[in-house]
Amino acid sequence: AGTVPEPPPPEAAIFADLSAEELRAVRAFLLGRPELALAPGRGEPLAKNSLFLVELLPPKKRLALRYLDQGGPAPRRQARAVVFFGAQAEPNVTEFAVGPLPRPSAYRPLRHKGRRAVPFAARPVTALEYELLQRKLAEATAPLYRLLRDTTGFWHHNCSERCLTFADVAPRGQAPGERRTWFMLQRFVEGHFLHPVGLEVLIEHSAVDPRRWAVQRLWYHGHYYASAEELARRYERGELPAARLPPPAAPLFSSYVPRGRFTTGTATDVHGAKVCEPQGRRYRLRGNRLEYGGWSLAFRVRSSAGLQLFDVRFNGERVAYELSVQEAAAFYGGHSPAGMQTKFLDAGWGMGSVTYELARGIDCPEAATFVDVHHLYDADGPVRFARALCVFELPTGVPLRRHFDSDFRGAYQFYAALEGQALVLRTTSTVYNYDYIWDVLLYPNGVLEAKVHATGYIHATFYTPQGRRYGSRVHAHVLGNLHTHLVHYKVDLDVAGTGNSFETLELQLENISNPWRPGERVVQPRLQRQPRRSERQAAFPLGQALPRYLLFSNPRQRNRWGHRRSYRIQPSSHAGRVLPRGWKEERGIAWGRYHLAVTRHHENEATSSSIYAQNDPWEPVVDFESFVRDNESIEDQDLVAWVTVGFLHIPHAEDVPNTATPGNAVGFFLRPFNFFDEDPSVASRGAVIVRPLAAAAARVHIQRWTPASAGPCVSPGPFTYNGTYWQE
Amino acid sequence: AGTVPEPPPPEAAIFADLSAEELRAVRAFLLGRPELALAPGRGEPLAKNSLFLVELLPPKKRLALRYLDQGGPAPRRQARAVVFFGAQAEPNVTEFAVGPLPRPSAYRPLRHKGRRAVPFAARPVTALEYELLQRKLAEATAPLYRLLRDTTGFWHHNCSERCLTFADVAPRGQAPGERRTWFMLQRFVEGHFLHPVGLEVLIEHSAVDPRRWAVQRLWYHGHYYASAEELARRYERGELPAARLPPPAAPLFSSYVPRGRFTTGTATDVHGAKVCEPQGRRYRLRGNRLEYGGWSLAFRVRSSAGLQLFDVRFNGERVAYELSVQEAAAFYGGHSPAGMQTKFLDAGWGMGSVTYELARGIDCPEAATFVDVHHLYDADGPVRFARALCVFELPTGVPLRRHFDSDFRGAYQFYAALEGQALVLRTTSTVYNYDYIWDVLLYPNGVLEAKVHATGYIHATFYTPQGRRYGSRVHAHVLGNLHTHLVHYKVDLDVAGTGNSFETLELQLENISNPWRPGERVVQPRLQRQPRRSERQAAFPLGQALPRYLLFSNPRQRNRWGHRRSYRIQPSSHAGRVLPRGWKEERGIAWGRYHLAVTRHHENEATSSSIYAQNDPWEPVVDFESFVRDNESIEDQDLVAWVTVGFLHIPHAEDVPNTATPGNAVGFFLRPFNFFDEDPSVASRGAVIVRPLAAAAARVHIQRWTPASAGPCVSPGPFTYNGTYWQE
Ligand SMILES: [Ca+2]
Ligand SMILES: [Ca+2]
Ligand SMILES: [Ca+2]
Ligand SMILES: [Ca+2]
Ligand SMILES: [Cu+2]
Ligand SMILES: [Cu+2]
Repeated sequence: AGTVPEPPPPEAAIFADLSAEELRAVRAFLLGRPELALAPGRGEPLAKNSLFLVELLPPKKRLALRYLDQGGPAPRRQARAVVFFGAQAEPNVTEFAVGPLPRPSAYRPLRHKGRRAVPFAARPVTALEYELLQRKLAEATAPLYRLLRDTTGFWHHNCSERCLTFADVAPRGQAPGERRTWFMLQRFVEGHFLHPVGLEVLIEHSAVDPRRWAVQRLWYHGHYYASAEELARRYERGELPAARLPPPAAPLFSSYVPRGRFTTGTATDVHGAKVCEPQGRRYRLRGNRLEYGGWSLAFRVRSSAGLQLFDVRFNGERVAYELSVQEAAAFYGGHSPAGMQTKFLDAGWGMGSVTYELARGIDCPEAATFVDVHHLYDADGPVRFARALCVFELPTGVPLRRHFDSDFRGAYQFYAALEGQALVLRTTSTVYNYDYIWDVLLYPNGVLEAKVHATGYIHATFYTPQGRRYGSRVHAHVLGNLHTHLVHYKVDLDVAGTGNSFETLELQLENISNPWRPGERVVQPRLQRQPRRSERQAAFPLGQALPRYLLFSNPRQRNRWGHRRSYRIQPSSHAGRVLPRGWKEERGIAWGRYHLAVTRHHENEATSSSIYAQNDPWEPVVDFESFVRDNESIEDQDLVAWVTVGFLHIPHAEDVPNTATPGNAVGFFLRPFNFFDEDPSVASRGAVIVRPLAAAAARVHIQRWTPASAGPCVSPGPFTYNGTYWQE
Repeated sequence: AGTVPEPPPPEAAIFADLSAEELRAVRAFLLGRPELALAPGRGEPLAKNSLFLVELLPPKKRLALRYLDQGGPAPRRQARAVVFFGAQAEPNVTEFAVGPLPRPSAYRPLRHKGRRAVPFAARPVTALEYELLQRKLAEATAPLYRLLRDTTGFWHHNCSERCLTFADVAPRGQAPGERRTWFMLQRFVEGHFLHPVGLEVLIEHSAVDPRRWAVQRLWYHGHYYASAEELARRYERGELPAARLPPPAAPLFSSYVPRGRFTTGTATDVHGAKVCEPQGRRYRLRGNRLEYGGWSLAFRVRSSAGLQLFDVRFNGERVAYELSVQEAAAFYGGHSPAGMQTKFLDAGWGMGSVTYELARGIDCPEAATFVDVHHLYDADGPVRFARALCVFELPTGVPLRRHFDSDFRGAYQFYAALEGQALVLRTTSTVYNYDYIWDVLLYPNGVLEAKVHATGYIHATFYTPQGRRYGSRVHAHVLGNLHTHLVHYKVDLDVAGTGNSFETLELQLENISNPWRPGERVVQPRLQRQPRRSERQAAFPLGQALPRYLLFSNPRQRNRWGHRRSYRIQPSSHAGRVLPRGWKEERGIAWGRYHLAVTRHHENEATSSSIYAQNDPWEPVVDFESFVRDNESIEDQDLVAWVTVGFLHIPHAEDVPNTATPGNAVGFFLRPFNFFDEDPSVASRGAVIVRPLAAAAARVHIQRWTPASAGPCVSPGPFTYNGTYWQE
C-alpha cells in the first residue's frame, strides 16, 4: 500500500484496464450526451437511463498484432459502456464503444453477434433494484412479523441485533422476459448463508415501476402459500406445525471462531510454514505487465468476468494471445424453490467486479505484490478495490525436476535438481456466499497452469426431510444442496503464430508379430493421431472421455527434431452435464456442453457468455453453440480453445463453516509439446549438480549458480488488513 | 544429520521398519541355520543359497488392533526374509517369517495365497547377476569393438573416459520360466539414459551357471542379427549404412548444466521463494510416528515397495489402518526390442529400496526433518540410506478456506480465513532412469492426499524413422517412447471402525412438475445412490467413467445430522488400459484393470503385487484378480480400497534433460464426507477474522489466535549434500 506502481510498457498498456481517470472521462462524456438522457446510476427511480458498466474494450486482435508484431500504430484505447435504457416505452440495454481515450469524443453501439438489442429483462439486478426489492420484501412479509419473530427470534422491521436478511436466486423465471425472483430469508448473523429460516418468497418485479411488483408465492417449511396473509392466517390459527429455531448458540457454527482442539496437541497457536523471498523478487511487474522465468504477459481484471491475460509469451514468442475466465456456473437441485430454481451464472452477479481485498500473509504470502483494480460497475464513478490482485513466487514444495544417478555400489555418478517454484497471479471473486480463487501459475519450463479453487459458504436451503434426496443435512435446519460447478475459460492459443491446427493423440494397441521370435505376437501401444479438421470434430461433449493429448500446432513450424511445434491443453476436471441438451436454461450454458471446443477466431465471438446470461439463459445474448454450429475448418487457422472444467459438489458436514480448498480445485495446464528443442528451464540458474569426489566418500563437488546461502526472510511486520473499497 | 531421532511411542513401534540391529540379527540367525546353507549374498557363484531381502513382517491386523484398541499384548515383531535357493537341483525362492525380534529363534515359510513356491526365474536380478551379465555382454560384444568405436566413439574394453554402459529391460521373455533380457547399449556420459547407440542385445541367462548363457539376437539400427559375429562381419564388409554418432557436445544435452537465457531478463541466479518456519515445527515426529493438526500415523518404507502408513487417525479416531504404495508400472511401445518389450513393474527393481538421499532445500525445504532408512536388499547387511524420507510443513499458497462478507456498500460484515498449510511426508524411488516422488499430504481439515510425481530421465531408445509411430524424436538419435504410468495404492480404510460399507453417489436428472407453476416442468439434479454390495459391483474398470463420489461408510454410525459417517476417495488420474484383458503380461498387472476395486480384507491378500511380478508377469505370484473373483459381500465388512492412478506419457522434446513435475502428478484424496459434524479445522488457531469498526473506514478489529508478527526465518547455513549410503 502506498507504493506507486510502475507504468506498464506500451505493449502491455494497450490491454490495461481503464484507469480511474479514463473511467471518469467515459462517464462524463456519456452523461454529457443529451440524446442518451443518462441519470446518475444509484438513485431512484428504476425507470431511468443509467450507465451500468464501463470497462476497457480490448483492441481488435488484428490491430493489436499489427502493433505488437509489425511496428504498426498503437490501437486507440476504447471503452465498452453498458447503458440501461429504462426511461423508454420499450426499455432495453445497449452497449457502446466509446473513444478515443483518454478524451472520448464519440460513441457507437456495439452489437452482439446475431442480435439486435439486449432485452431489458436480461439485465443484472442493480443495487437500486435490490433496495426496492428489499423494501417490497419487508412490506410483503409484514403480515408474518409474529410468525417470524416467534419461530426464528429474528425479524425484519426496526431490527437492530436480530434482523432477517435474504438471499435471492436466479434465473428469475422460466422464460424470456420474466423477472420473478425467489428470496430466501436468513437470520442476519455471521455466515447468514447457513441460517435459512425456512421461508422463501417469490416476487414478480419485471415492471420498472416497483409499485407494480407483487408477491406471487411463498414456500414455508415444505409447503406453498399463495400469499403472506394466507400463511399468517394459518399460523395464527395454529394450523402450522410448530418449528421453532433455537437461538444461535456461541460459538456460532457458521463463524470462523476457533472451537475444539486437535487431540494431537501439535501447536496451531503459533505461525506455521510460510513463503519467504530470501533474495527479493525474481519477477518483474510493471503496471499490468508481468515477467518471470521466460514468461511475459499483460493482464487485466474484466469487471464483467474477471482475470484476462493477453500476449502471453515465452522467451519472447507468443503462446497465447488471450487467456481469460468467461463464466462460472453452479446449477443446483433441491426440494424448496431456492434449491430447485438455482442455476447461478456468476458473470450476471458481477463476478469480475467483486474482487475484494486479499489479505497479506493469508490470501497471498507476506512477500506478495498486491495490485489495486478499479471497477465502474453499478456505481456513479470508479470504485477502487485495493489489493484485489496479487503476484508472488510460490515454492511448490517439489523440485521442478531431479535425478539421482546411482552407481548401485553405494554411491552415484551425480545428483542433480532444479528447485521448484512457480509464479502465481491471483484474484478472487466473492459472489455472495462463494469465494472463487482464480490463479494462473507460470512455471519456468514453459508450463502455464490455470486453476480455480472454490471456498466460502455453500448455497444452503432450509432442511426438510425431502431435501435429503438433494444433498446432506449439514446442520439442524440446513440442507447443503448438491450442485455442479462449471467454469469456462477462453484460450486463444497462438502457437508460434496465429495459423494453427488441432489434433488429438491417444494410445492405440497394435498386435504385430514378434520380430525376434517368429510365431509369437506382440501387443503394444502406438500413437493414434487424429487431426481434427473442423469445429464439430473438435467439440468434445461432457459425459464422454476426452482424448488425453489435445495438441495445438503450427503446421508450418517444426522443432529441431522435426516435430510440429505444439502446445498441449491438459485439463484437471470432474465436470459433468448439468441439464439435458437444449432444455430451457441449458441454452444459457451451451459452452458447458463441451470439455473442449476449438473454434476459429472471430472478433464477434469474443466471449462465450455475458452478464445477461443469468437473467435470460433461455435466449442467451451470447449463443456459444453458434460458434461451433457453422462447423468451420480449423486447419491452419487462428484457433481459440474453449475449456470447461468443473466438479460435482455434494455438500457435507465438513462444508461448515466453509467449503475448504483441498480437493476443490479444477483447471488446466498449457504444456509445450515439442514446441521447444529441449526443456527451456535449462536456462534457469536454479539448478544444483552434485558429483562425489571419491566413490562412497562424503566429499562432493557441488555445482550451482546461485549463492551458497540464502539469507533469512519473512517480513517482521505485523499482519494488517483494511478491506474497504472506495470510490475515488 | 547427526541428530538422534526420538524413539517411537509403542503404538507406532509395532509398525516400525527393522532397525539395523534387527536386520543384522535376522541375517545372523538365518546364516546360522545349517539346513538353509546360506552363503553370503554378493559374491559368486549364482548357484548358491542366499538371503536376498529382510524387512519387517507387519503384525497381523487382528493382533495389532487388539493391542491398539483393546489393551492386548503388543504383537511380536517379526521379519520377512526372502531366500534365493540357487544351490538346489530345483532352485526356488522361499519367503520366511523370522522371529521374535530382537533375538530371533525360529522361522517358518510364508506362502503366497494359492501358491506353492516362487519360481526361481521370477526372482529379481541381483547385483551379482548384473555383474555376470555385464561380463557376458562385454564378451559378446567383443567382435563389435571396431563397429562401436567407429560409430559411437565409445567402447567397452579397457575404457576409461569413453565407455559404453547398458540398460536392460523387462520382462525377460515371453512366458513363465524364461529369463532372456534385452540390453540396450548407451554411451556412459552424464544422463546415459538419453544416449542409446542403437545396439540392443538379447541374452538368455536362465541357467544358474553363467557359462551356459548365450546371446540370442541383436538389434542394430533397425535390423536384427543372429550373432555379434554376423553383425561385425557385415560391418567389416561395409554392408551397413554408415551411421556415426557425433561426439557428445558441451553443454551435454542430457545434463543439468544451465544453458541459454530466458529473454525476460528476470534473475534466476539468486534464490527464489522458499519455505520457512518462523516459529518452528508445528508437527511432532517421534521415530516413525507423526502427528500434525489432528492427524497421527505410523510410517515405514518397505524395502519391497516403498511408503506404507499404518494406523492413520484423525483426532484419535482411525480413518485407515493402512495406506501404502503397491506397485508402479510403465508399459511402453516401440520399434526396437527395448521399446517393444518394456513393461516395467518397478517393485521388481527394488522400488522400495532405491530411496536415495533427499537434498535439503531442493527435494525438501531447508527446514524439513530428514529421516534415515535401512534396507537389507541384495546386500550382506543393512544399508543405511541417509535422509531417505523427509517431513515438512508446506504453505500451500492458498488459504484452507476464506470468505469476504461484503455489505455491497463499500465495506463488509467480516473477512475471515484460515491459512493454508499441509504436512508433507515424502520419499523418492529412483528406479534407474525414473525418479518417483512419493508424497502424503495431511491437511488440518481431515483431508489426506496421496500423490506421486514422475521426474528423472525418460526410458529412451535409439531413434529410427519407424519409431515415430511410438513417440517423439527428442534428440538426433533418441526416441522418447510412449508409455503408460500406472501406480497402485492399497488403502485399508477403517472408517470409524472396521465394519464398513461402500456406495457410490452420482448426479441423476429428474423431471418433475413445477410445484409453484402448474403445467411447467422442472428438470433438476438429485442424488443417485448406489450401494455396492459385492466385490464385483465395486470393481470399476479403466476405460469407463468412475462415479464421482466413492464413499466408505460405517453403516452403524451417524454424524450429528444423521448421515452415515463416511470417507470419500477422490482420484486425480488419467489412467488408461495398457493391454487387452488377459493378454500375456497383462495378467501381471490385474490390479491395473480397475480405477478402484473394493475387496474384503484378508490377511493373505496383503499386497496386490510382489517383487516377482516383473520377471514373471505371466503367472504372477500375487494374482490380484483372485481378490475380486470370489465376489464376496462387502456390506459391513472390513474393506480395502485398491486405487490405480496413472497417466499416458508421450515424451516430447521438453522431457530432455528430464521429465518435469508440473502436470506429471497423479494421486487421490481421502476426504471426510459427513464423518465429522463440521469441518474439524475449526480447531485450528490459525484463523483470522477481521471486522470493520466503522463502515467504510480503515479501522478494523482483527481477531486472531497466533502472534501478530511471525519472525524472520530460513536457515542461513549453506546448502550441503552427501549422497552416499553405507553399510553399517
Ligand atoms: Ca465457427
Ligand atoms: Ca489463436
Ligand atoms: Ca474377495
Ligand atoms: Ca478396512
Ligand atoms: Cu460448491
Ligand atoms: Cu513417463
